[in-house]
Amino acid sequence: MSGAIGLSEVSDLHKDLGIASEEIASPEQAAKGLSMVVFSGDLDKVLAAMIIANGAAAMDLPVSIFFTFWGLNVLRREGPVHVTGKKTMVEGMFGRMMPRGPDHLQISKMKMGGLGTRMIKREMAKKHVATLTQLIQSAQEQGVRFIACTMSMDLMGIHKEELLPGIKYGNVGSFIDAADRSRITLFI
Amino acid sequence: MSGAIGLSEVSDLHKDLGIASEEIASPEQAAKGLSMVVFSGDLDKVLAAMIIANGAAAMDLPVSIFFTFWGLNVLRREGPVHVTGKKTMVEGMFGRMMPRGPDHLQISKMKMGGLGTRMIKREMAKKHVATLTQLIQSAQEQGVRFIACTMSMDLMGIHKEELLPGIKYGNVGSFIDAADRSRITLFI
Amino acid sequence: MSGAIGLSEVSDLHKDLGIASEEIASPEQAAKGLSMVVFSGDLDKVLAAMIIANGAAAMDLPVSIFFTFWGLNVLRREGPVHVTGKKTMVEGMFGRMMPRGPDHLQISKMKMGGLGTRMIKREMAKKHVATLTQLIQSAQEQGVRFIACTMSMDLMGIHKEELLPGIKYGNVGSFIDAADRSRITLFI
Repeated sequence: MSGAIGLSEVSDLHKDLGIASEEIASPEQAAKGLSMVVFSGDLDKVLAAMIIANGAAAMDLPVSIFFTFWGLNVLRREGPVHVTGKKTMVEGMFGRMMPRGPDHLQISKMKMGGLGTRMIKREMAKKHVATLTQLIQSAQEQGVRFIACTMSMDLMGIHKEELLPGIKYGNVGSFIDAADRSRITLFI
Repeated sequence: MSGAIGLSEVSDLHKDLGIASEEIASPEQAAKGLSMVVFSGDLDKVLAAMIIANGAAAMDLPVSIFFTFWGLNVLRREGPVHVTGKKTMVEGMFGRMMPRGPDHLQISKMKMGGLGTRMIKREMAKKHVATLTQLIQSAQEQGVRFIACTMSMDLMGIHKEELLPGIKYGNVGSFIDAADRSRITLFI
Repeated sequence: MSGAIGLSEVSDLHKDLGIASEEIASPEQAAKGLSMVVFSGDLDKVLAAMIIANGAAAMDLPVSIFFTFWGLNVLRREGPVHVTGKKTMVEGMFGRMMPRGPDHLQISKMKMGGLGTRMIKREMAKKHVATLTQLIQSAQEQGVRFIACTMSMDLMGIHKEELLPGIKYGNVGSFIDAADRSRITLFI
């Protein structure tokens, strides 16, 4: 490990990435459970992620989900939130353009101007599939660890008070640490 | 594990997710092989999935693929199929709008109104890359387990007689069980 | 393992897939590190991949990244490159239409005709997040193995002289071999 990465020295990189070296699992240690990155903010992909998380938790596996980039929107509270500290114009724009919480996500295909999302939701209700909000609640009740990516929060100007209660905050080091102790690792 | 998930009690969740607790791998058990979720129905992504599956099977690794959401379309038979039992109007619409089988998938980028897909297919043929249909056949011949997600089938109103022969049916519990015994886990 | 896959015999498949059977990890061998497929050529997804790769390398884990399909564009050198050997018309077209290197990738959402990408890049610079080019350099300096998928190169008509120096070339067998020795496996 040598050299700089341009804007930050590697020593900073360690800090920036949230890495503490004592966190690393030893190779002998048995890996267990599921670690996911939820990068996507598409309703269909996030539903798949939460169904997998609930399934694994119901099978008594430890589950960690790291929400980053567009996936961060899954954790946003509904409606406007009073934020201490000002947002820049671009941060404000991101906040308004991106969906505010699980109820506002759109599916990735057959969008038809929002009609596809409404149709899928109606079919889910008719067939007694839990809503995304219910799956998130159930996962939290089952002890699934939700981790918000602080680098994405910083980039998009999302503050802690805009996100769900009961979640943790971490950086890429938190994900790698969890993933390195898990049997199942997925990027969604 | 406490509380309800809204539409179903947690006891139902176990049943809904297709989980039998004796299925769980013990942490001491050596993990082996490859388990994939194929969520996407894009030609390029499904090609990548099937090339990885064939490669792993050729290296004598056990391979399981769980087809869910748009990925379910990969398993559909071509042409209209007589279905016992009526479809609702929305189910019928899903059936007609979504691609019927591997030959009807489109690539995810450079679509150019279908031209991109035709160009990629022509290049693949010219360069003797197997078609998606051939890769699926080869995978089945090599013993790759294909599992159709029954929750997605129910949601989209897809019936068993509309899907390929020789496949299995399962729920998220089937995927987690297989993934928990595998070294390599991917979400595509 | 029986039968043909249509265009190639299975014996060819082994060769085509770049598989040498002595490469397979024994089940007893401890798995370590991270293996990723970078299939996507979207700026946001590739950034996530490179942040994860740098993080894992900084935590002293061995990291391999297999660049395939659209992901191959991440490895392209900027500007026109003199290529020995002629390209077909379609290959030339692919080459011109697809982004040439990390600086030309676009984000997958909120594109707004290129404005979204410029805005994200400006926010990254303002908040001292390393650029994609810097993250790639840093990963290479930390010993991350970059593997270009030769099947994709062949399909898209991309030649070795068009790609970054210091990378390796391999086929799906290279990815499965690396992944089978890794704890963390991701498809991005």
